[in-house]
Amino acid sequence: MAFNKKEVIRFRHCDPAGIVFYPRYLEIINDLVEDWFEVMGYPFKEMDACLGAGVPTVNLNIKFMQPCRQGDTLFLELVCARIGDSSFDIKVTGQRLEQPVLEAYVTLCFTTIGKQISKLSIPEEVRRKMLEYRPVQETASL
Amino acid sequence: MAFNKKEVIRFRHCDPAGIVFYPRYLEIINDLVEDWFEVMGYPFKEMDACLGAGVPTVNLNIKFMQPCRQGDTLFLELVCARIGDSSFDIKVTGQRLEQPVLEAYVTLCFTTIGKQISKLSIPEEVRRKMLEYRPVQETASL
Amino acid sequence: MAFNKKEVIRFRHCDPAGIVFYPRYLEIINDLVEDWFEVMGYPFKEMDACLGAGVPTVNLNIKFMQPCRQGDTLFLELVCARIGDSSFDIKVTGQRLEQPVLEAYVTLCFTTIGKQISKLSIPEEVRRKMLEYRPVQETASL
Amino acid sequence: MAFNKKEVIRFRHCDPAGIVFYPRYLEIINDLVEDWFEVMGYPFKEMDACLGAGVPTVNLNIKFMQPCRQGDTLFLELVCARIGDSSFDIKVTGQRLEQPVLEAYVTLCFTTIGKQISKLSIPEEVRRKMLEYRPVQETASL
Repeated sequence: MAFNKKEVIRFRHCDPAGIVFYPRYLEIINDLVEDWFEVMGYPFKEMDACLGAGVPTVNLNIKFMQPCRQGDTLFLELVCARIGDSSFDIKVTGQRLEQPVLEAYVTLCFTTIGKQISKLSIPEEVRRKMLEYRPVQETASL
Repeated sequence: MAFNKKEVIRFRHCDPAGIVFYPRYLEIINDLVEDWFEVMGYPFKEMDACLGAGVPTVNLNIKFMQPCRQGDTLFLELVCARIGDSSFDIKVTGQRLEQPVLEAYVTLCFTTIGKQISKLSIPEEVRRKMLEYRPVQETASL
Repeated sequence: MAFNKKEVIRFRHCDPAGIVFYPRYLEIINDLVEDWFEVMGYPFKEMDACLGAGVPTVNLNIKFMQPCRQGDTLFLELVCARIGDSSFDIKVTGQRLEQPVLEAYVTLCFTTIGKQISKLSIPEEVRRKMLEYRPVQETASL
Repeated sequence: MAFNKKEVIRFRHCDPAGIVFYPRYLEIINDLVEDWFEVMGYPFKEMDACLGAGVPTVNLNIKFMQPCRQGDTLFLELVCARIGDSSFDIKVTGQRLEQPVLEAYVTLCFTTIGKQISKLSIPEEVRRKMLEYRPVQETASL
């Protein structure tokens, strides 16, 4: 199972060359992760309030294959590529007109929030939810 | 030789957890590349006008080791890790209080600008300038 | 008739105080105007290509009554408060839980795009569409 | 006495029309206010920690006279136009090549920070500092 979302490219995403300014893709991916947590039943907002947890990004690997422009529709797909004790990896792919636009591997980590930041184990209920988003072949080998 | 710059973390860089929102680091790195081209004598603005070229980011690999907060000073260092025909890699490291904050490898590519984007060879004069920013050990092996 | 839209406040909109960083409200309003033009049948993208026109913001007057936080739903309403020869005013109101969040008056101007920017008369077909978004009492007095 | 600053327009500030996207000007003004507080001896960061105070923007009135493009230098000037009990107004002007680019009146308010936001009187020492940035004619009439 994958988490899917459509994102329409906006004027505010684009640079003087008329294409998406790449830090904006990271904002788009951040929104995607936010939506995924919401769908899993753990909105960022409540995780903060209830679990005292945040999920900062600790590693990012992203490849851009072709540009997007204002008005383009970007089809995003998120799967959960790895689940560790505190950190987990997602794979995000983006397509436009069935052509690849971007492919990203992002590592996020459950941490405390506040002045001192330390790792937290991924809460068991969140982990179980995440497992549903493992790609088929990888789930099979668990 | 490396290109160095200090960046003070601003209110606008920070998220509700009080730490830099990671897409803002990519904006900071984009500014760094912009400054580096300016120092090499090829401002983005003129490259566009004179060479008809842009340098979109095609690949990014970034690791975040510790968070930064408003008022922190981030010390950035850029070296040119690889120079190909059209594309080149930079390595960017960021430190705060002599502790590593981030390490990034970014691949940028010389391209035409406009509706159709195609690769351009890196202009010879730009390539020569970039070579000055190769790390010592690698320059030795050229 | 008014143009209405819901906007969910995101992590990326919020500042270290946990409330929307006010320049993000202007991005939200820019998206709203973009959506309104799309609904009127004149997407920004095509206006640029077909009419050779852009609509930069020339004046902005905005009041913030209460803060919004991540997860809040902001209900936006846009009416067209004035239509001049080249410029027009919109009034944008934002509410959260039926309490006022913001009230803005924005003046935008039809202009040429490119190196030299000069005023353009609002195309007649665009003007006719805009008139449908005049508030009732004002339309009556036309 | 006025608080002055130069800001070089960056690639990241500019939109597909090649000019500064106006919400970026508000980020630039936010940085200016941040720098001004720093120079007055009350960095935002410490105000938060020491005074338990924040200074959200409650009203903004801004006029854009001409566009700026990447590489342009924007000369900014800030004076303190009014000091009330909790809120104060600043006037910000921006020039490029001695031509006016923008003129803004911004009202900010001292408030508590946290879940509940309520007005705070401007601390006496901050008020005294602000008075130094009143424009000459207005100071005379105090």
